[in-house]
Amino acid sequence: MANDTLEGNRHRGIPRQAASPPALIDAIQGTLADFLAAQIGSLDSIDPALGRFARTARDLVLAGGKRLRPVFAYWGWRGLAGPDEPLEPALPAFAALELMHTFALVHDDVMDQSATRRGLPTAHRILAGQHEHDGSLGDSERFGTSAAILIGDLCLVWADQLLARSGGPPSVRAYYDRMRVEAIAGQYLDVLGESQPGAWSVERALLVARHKTASYTVQRPLQFGLALTGLARPETEEVYGRYGLAVGEAFQLRDDLLGVYGDPAITGKPAGDDLRSGKPTALLMLARKLATPAQRAELTLDPAGAVNPADGSGGSTTARIERRARVIAETGAPARLEAMIQERVADGVAALAGAPIHESARTALIELAVRVTHRPA
Amino acid sequence: MANDTLEGNRHRGIPRQAASPPALIDAIQGTLADFLAAQIGSLDSIDPALGRFARTARDLVLAGGKRLRPVFAYWGWRGLAGPDEPLEPALPAFAALELMHTFALVHDDVMDQSATRRGLPTAHRILAGQHEHDGSLGDSERFGTSAAILIGDLCLVWADQLLARSGGPPSVRAYYDRMRVEAIAGQYLDVLGESQPGAWSVERALLVARHKTASYTVQRPLQFGLALTGLARPETEEVYGRYGLAVGEAFQLRDDLLGVYGDPAITGKPAGDDLRSGKPTALLMLARKLATPAQRAELTLDPAGAVNPADGSGGSTTARIERRARVIAETGAPARLEAMIQERVADGVAALAGAPIHESARTALIELAVRVTHRPA
Repeated sequence: MANDTLEGNRHRGIPRQAASPPALIDAIQGTLADFLAAQIGSLDSIDPALGRFARTARDLVLAGGKRLRPVFAYWGWRGLAGPDEPLEPALPAFAALELMHTFALVHDDVMDQSATRRGLPTAHRILAGQHEHDGSLGDSERFGTSAAILIGDLCLVWADQLLARSGGPPSVRAYYDRMRVEAIAGQYLDVLGESQPGAWSVERALLVARHKTASYTVQRPLQFGLALTGLARPETEEVYGRYGLAVGEAFQLRDDLLGVYGDPAITGKPAGDDLRSGKPTALLMLARKLATPAQRAELTLDPAGAVNPADGSGGSTTARIERRARVIAETGAPARLEAMIQERVADGVAALAGAPIHESARTALIELAVRVTHRPA
Repeated sequence: MANDTLEGNRHRGIPRQAASPPALIDAIQGTLADFLAAQIGSLDSIDPALGRFARTARDLVLAGGKRLRPVFAYWGWRGLAGPDEPLEPALPAFAALELMHTFALVHDDVMDQSATRRGLPTAHRILAGQHEHDGSLGDSERFGTSAAILIGDLCLVWADQLLARSGGPPSVRAYYDRMRVEAIAGQYLDVLGESQPGAWSVERALLVARHKTASYTVQRPLQFGLALTGLARPETEEVYGRYGLAVGEAFQLRDDLLGVYGDPAITGKPAGDDLRSGKPTALLMLARKLATPAQRAELTLDPAGAVNPADGSGGSTTARIERRARVIAETGAPARLEAMIQERVADGVAALAGAPIHESARTALIELAVRVTHRPA
């Protein structure tokens, strides 16, 4: 998992090159590596302990994932800029989105107390491990949490610094700011939902999906890319908005399905991770809505990974997770979610029809709509 | 404590008006209140739960403290801009520093697990209290920590948005970025020091003071204010650098003394807070350096607030804290620290002599040098 960039290409034989030119991914990686090397140098010169801290941050950024936000921003930009506009000046802006994403992931993993991400230890676990290795005093977990909060903070500030190296009109920053506020707001709703599953609903889960994922992953990156061209195009902005929310919500619904039925070897997360934590996803909320009274009794709102589950079901955590996954399937919720994904993909693709964007971008965005919503991880 | 703005004015009869015009403090408060009202409105319109979240952030920002960073930025700016330049256009930039400071305080309090700040509950405690009040499921403390991380993140993004409303050349943002990175780096060294007190020293404690406090509180705000004028003045930049590091370090050394000998009724923190947590401050490091073997045995590196202190001293936490505070005094470290404070204040004031800045700024900065290093809280 560590070296892939867009895993979805393994699925349905969709060619990877068309939607995500390898040259783009390599250029973003190069931009990040150069920027981070300079930051590490400057912190190292203050103190070697800060150099190590910055290198830990760099490794998390470069380990990378799907680079989806830069890819969407790229196509949002290419859609107006056309195929001949040189990529170079826009690269820091695209790469900044990836740095900002590392901030979001590191802080999310602290809040969710997740042990792994992309099959590797999460930031707070890596840092706790350094603390143990150094034979330091005190609570390693607490040190890991504190240092991970700071790594996230640092990546957010670095993202800003990198963004400042791209030109572009003030609207670039306006979209960037909306993206950041919506991602934080969406994550707050996510945290709130986990603390109030009884007050949650399909509608509220979709609200989280819209803000935490759709806006942040697809809609705003596309509009950010558009703004980078320096051209004001309200019609294209609206097309990107409609496509972005539809495809972004579908992306999150796929995530819900992978969180219960995904293959741990491919997702890099434990099997049934969402059931373990009791996250009130659209999938679980829909299953509870569709459930018979008997099924509903099985789908309690307590995390299946809890030490003393209140559902009295006994048995191992794994057995409880497997039973819940089966009951959810029996309610018909996964099939309904698949249909919701298809509707949204169709709506996103429909939004592109006749949009005043370059043909290469239209083709790539249609491919991406399918690929990011039909992925194994 | 809640309504004060510059507590130091109670000390030594230094007039408050000269160095911090009440009009400035009021204008900053007004700028923050207006900006925050607009952000609350926009989050409220997404979901009332987000409105409540944003109002909690606003209350933390407006409860305020000394507003030292805006005050230093103001004088850094006034020093070149002169007394007649209208304040209005620079206000968002000064206020942005205060929003950024809320970010730093909220995250620091999460890391230090502090219960109070300025005599009021810290962000994570307020949020944990909301969770309990709502009768939500799960661990209130964990909810409070997650939501406080997000409040900090939000304040950092808001600070950026507010800064973007001030004009000024790119150098404004360059100083702002340095300030942010240095504050995060300094906090990392602080966290590291607490986990490795045995490897700490007076020199390392001063390195933390320089980055976590001096650069962030005094030096960079002054230079940020200078950059806001749009004038390139390397000589003044250097004066501000020398003054800022000297006075900023003295400020932190005063903080060390207040952390052990401060009056809880004035500091708003528990008595002997630093001894309770075992923070390896310059004061404690110096005391251990000056201590006789018998004294040194009393000054273990374990937190005095630990449940099972390894020093075998027994007794209540309060008794242990009082004994350590007495032993530290007996080593002569507090007197030595007072001398270090005086040296730094003198150096800072000397840097201003003959500097090409407006007379009102010179007078105010001399007053501030004394006031912020001779304060009861």
